[in-house]
Amino acid sequence: MDYIVSAPGKAILHGEHAVVHGKVALAVSLNLRTYLRLRATTTGKVCINLPNIDTFFCWDLSELQQLIASSQGQKEEVTRLNHQLVNRLREFVGVTNGNLDTRTMATLAFLYIYLSLFGSGKLPSLTVSVWSELPTGAGLGSSAAYTVCLAAALLCASGDVPSPLKEWDHTARWCQEDLELINSWAFQGEIIIHGNPSGVDNAVGTWGGMLRFLAGKIIPLSRVPLLRILLTNTKIPRSTKVLVARVKDKINKFPSIMTPVLDSVDAISCTCEKVLSEMTCEPITGEHYNILEELIDINQHHLNVMGVGHPALDTLCRVTLARGLHSKLTGAGGGGCGITLLRPETDSCVIQSTVQDLRDCGFDCWETSIGGPGVQQHSPLSVKEEILEILNQF
Amino acid sequence: MDYIVSAPGKAILHGEHAVVHGKVALAVSLNLRTYLRLRATTTGKVCINLPNIDTFFCWDLSELQQLIASSQGQKEEVTRLNHQLVNRLREFVGVTNGNLDTRTMATLAFLYIYLSLFGSGKLPSLTVSVWSELPTGAGLGSSAAYTVCLAAALLCASGDVPSPLKEWDHTARWCQEDLELINSWAFQGEIIIHGNPSGVDNAVGTWGGMLRFLAGKIIPLSRVPLLRILLTNTKIPRSTKVLVARVKDKINKFPSIMTPVLDSVDAISCTCEKVLSEMTCEPITGEHYNILEELIDINQHHLNVMGVGHPALDTLCRVTLARGLHSKLTGAGGGGCGITLLRPETDSCVIQSTVQDLRDCGFDCWETSIGGPGVQQHSPLSVKEEILEILNQF
Repeated sequence: MDYIVSAPGKAILHGEHAVVHGKVALAVSLNLRTYLRLRATTTGKVCINLPNIDTFFCWDLSELQQLIASSQGQKEEVTRLNHQLVNRLREFVGVTNGNLDTRTMATLAFLYIYLSLFGSGKLPSLTVSVWSELPTGAGLGSSAAYTVCLAAALLCASGDVPSPLKEWDHTARWCQEDLELINSWAFQGEIIIHGNPSGVDNAVGTWGGMLRFLAGKIIPLSRVPLLRILLTNTKIPRSTKVLVARVKDKINKFPSIMTPVLDSVDAISCTCEKVLSEMTCEPITGEHYNILEELIDINQHHLNVMGVGHPALDTLCRVTLARGLHSKLTGAGGGGCGITLLRPETDSCVIQSTVQDLRDCGFDCWETSIGGPGVQQHSPLSVKEEILEILNQF
Repeated sequence: MDYIVSAPGKAILHGEHAVVHGKVALAVSLNLRTYLRLRATTTGKVCINLPNIDTFFCWDLSELQQLIASSQGQKEEVTRLNHQLVNRLREFVGVTNGNLDTRTMATLAFLYIYLSLFGSGKLPSLTVSVWSELPTGAGLGSSAAYTVCLAAALLCASGDVPSPLKEWDHTARWCQEDLELINSWAFQGEIIIHGNPSGVDNAVGTWGGMLRFLAGKIIPLSRVPLLRILLTNTKIPRSTKVLVARVKDKINKFPSIMTPVLDSVDAISCTCEKVLSEMTCEPITGEHYNILEELIDINQHHLNVMGVGHPALDTLCRVTLARGLHSKLTGAGGGGCGITLLRPETDSCVIQSTVQDLRDCGFDCWETSIGGPGVQQHSPLSVKEEILEILNQF
């Protein structure tokens, strides 16, 4: 038993903040991925290695066996969180009030899914190792990419979903029904990590592509083109909570001015969805990209109107525009990350110069894509050498 | 007979472009003024001196007498343009098709008002000299400030309105009825210069303060506070016609996105009008200025969304914001002029540094105010020394 799976991060293409006020948002998969390798072992131990966050744990199976309540005779259903199990696990890993750091949360999420899936039978000895290309805490769905990988690999190991990879495949995905199950367990992990997640991040991690999010309802969109982008992290720290409150205050202060701005953002999301859908069923033209660029510019101005801009984001927009490229913030704003659309004809030396310009500003910058596949299983051949090396260290 | 009059320029505070699509705009007087001195002479000549545009003309009264048609027995009413007179004047000053430069237009406007007011009697010998603080062709209503001054001084000279200045006054204004007459004649001058003016510029030059402009209707607002500003000319040339067409195209391309933006601009104008009116009847607080600044920022973003921004205007906003000051373009955009709000507590050394920063960008920059008085008559004592010197040269 040896599975390698990966899941993408998430970016908001349009509609961040407006979605809080009942408008459409478009979430897309971000092809900076989290990779997870799960191997059966004969050590009588369960080990988890999360080198991104310096977290390495091994437990004896006997230790973990004690955490399963006698009441937990039946395999856990995934309907809602088993709070008793969570409480036992919190005690086990030593969560005292407020000790809610990333490392502890990631450990809890793993143990919860592992024990829920295997608690009714004999606990298997295994090692899980994870490596992510995503920065953590940057609003790019890194925790969801992790819980989606956990759910997919552990559900494979428990036999709840089949391993989709055939001998001759490099990568393979699961059928809809299996993805639903993976997504449900990933969502439980997200609840453990975040308390009250929207479910968008794990849905993007599971289905990939793009999804429409409106009034709590998440609708995966069948087909979207793969778009090349730069993802830039300004590394300006910000609080999503504070920024959401700031937008709300501004709407309350200037309702007649701000309500139309939210309507305009809604129309941007709908127009973008329509253009992307056209791009999958007719020849892609420069005009499609022109419109995508215009929508990015307009939305970036609207986000500034909402008060969630930042001088660093202005710099990002200015620096990329100087190279003919269009950018907007993605997510909460107030710093954080931005995306820059690359056109098919954008020359690689333009891209390299832009990346260098942005790094010179002190930003992190990756060339990647949006709209790529969700969770998938990999043959080792389809995993980049350097990532495979990291996963094989443990 | 020796009159000195002045009239202010105009700036659009909010609603430029949106006004073309049926939304409210707020036009304010800009206290960069045009000064005009009219003196009776005994030379038997009519002379006009416009040193800003290197235009100096003298005509014998006998020459001008010949331009008056025999049909023009009655004094001209100001209802509509006398096209026959205009045509005779165009021939007289040598307007061949297309020769519509500023100098010719300014001369035509003067001769038209002069002959219309005096043509039914004996033409008076006089000299008119004009000096303006306004840059021409920058969308700041310099032609209207000129025609308002012409109308006021010539109507005084003809006895159609009284000279309002009493012995002990420094400056004085006319009553409403006289202002109406001045405005009507100034509008005729604007028609000669511009062909199809909106009437906003001459109304601001006449009444000063602020006026609301909606669907062709111009409503002067009773009381507004005087606001200190910086007026910056980026000197980027632009075509109002092209910019208006650009906005129209964008609305046609993205109606669902752009229509709410126009609604938001409309609400900005209405909110601004309300705040300014509050500032005249309750103690002015920092919060009043905070709101004015927020409205400026939001509208500047909306104008960028409309596609009438320019990198030079972005620079203006960034440079002033670095000093804590908020700016927006005024008028057509795409370059041209911008205004920067100064707060009552803004330190004069901050202002001086900001002006220097902007000049270092290659811009022209003036510290002035908006909301000041419209056309007024001056005692020589109330005119700045250097302006008086220029007017007295002729």
